[in-house]
Amino acid sequence: MPTIFSKIVSGEIPADIVHQDDLITAFRDVSPAAPTHILIVPNQEITGVDDLDDGQAEVAGRMFLVARDLARKEGIAEGGYRLIINSGPHGGQEVMHLHMHLIGGRPLGPMLSKA
Amino acid sequence: MPTIFSKIVSGEIPADIVHQDDLITAFRDVSPAAPTHILIVPNQEITGVDDLDDGQAEVAGRMFLVARDLARKEGIAEGGYRLIINSGPHGGQEVMHLHMHLIGGRPLGPMLSKA
Repeated sequence: MPTIFSKIVSGEIPADIVHQDDLITAFRDVSPAAPTHILIVPNQEITGVDDLDDGQAEVAGRMFLVARDLARKEGIAEGGYRLIINSGPHGGQEVMHLHMHLIGGRPLGPMLSKA
Repeated sequence: MPTIFSKIVSGEIPADIVHQDDLITAFRDVSPAAPTHILIVPNQEITGVDDLDDGQAEVAGRMFLVARDLARKEGIAEGGYRLIINSGPHGGQEVMHLHMHLIGGRPLGPMLSKA
């Protein structure tokens, strides 16, 4: 079963795609938590951080560079932003396809809610 | 002026270092937000995500792989965790040296506090 993100990468499910290259696809979150809320995913279906192979440093690194470029395009590079990757149940990962949230456009407050 | 993280990387300031290689140093946060709270930083002083060069995908990617390995060592790979990179004022970045938070060991709740 392909993930919903794989279906977005392949174009089978529509999304507001803001970047696509040979390794990475980025699209707007349908339930944005802030004025800018973009999901950056590897085109290849990698379940999560724990499933990255040592040989996949390039794709992981590219996720950062795409975040950097999209933040500039969105006009939030100077104001600032937060990158979040949730992994597994305690992280609250909802789609089992590695993804980085790029969130900005307002002060984002504390990094975590209280325990 | 070297950042406090550069001084930790060089050993000038003591820290509870849990990983060090040719590109990356990782150490425990002195004010942990959860049972596991580790900071993963490039040895080289890079101010933030916006200061990454295209040629630095490898160091950025290595940050993910070090996070993956440390999560396994900490016994939180299955339970899950969150990786957070704050950039600039809206992100709440406090030290002007790129760093990734590896946080886990309890359910972490919502990704953001309400606006």
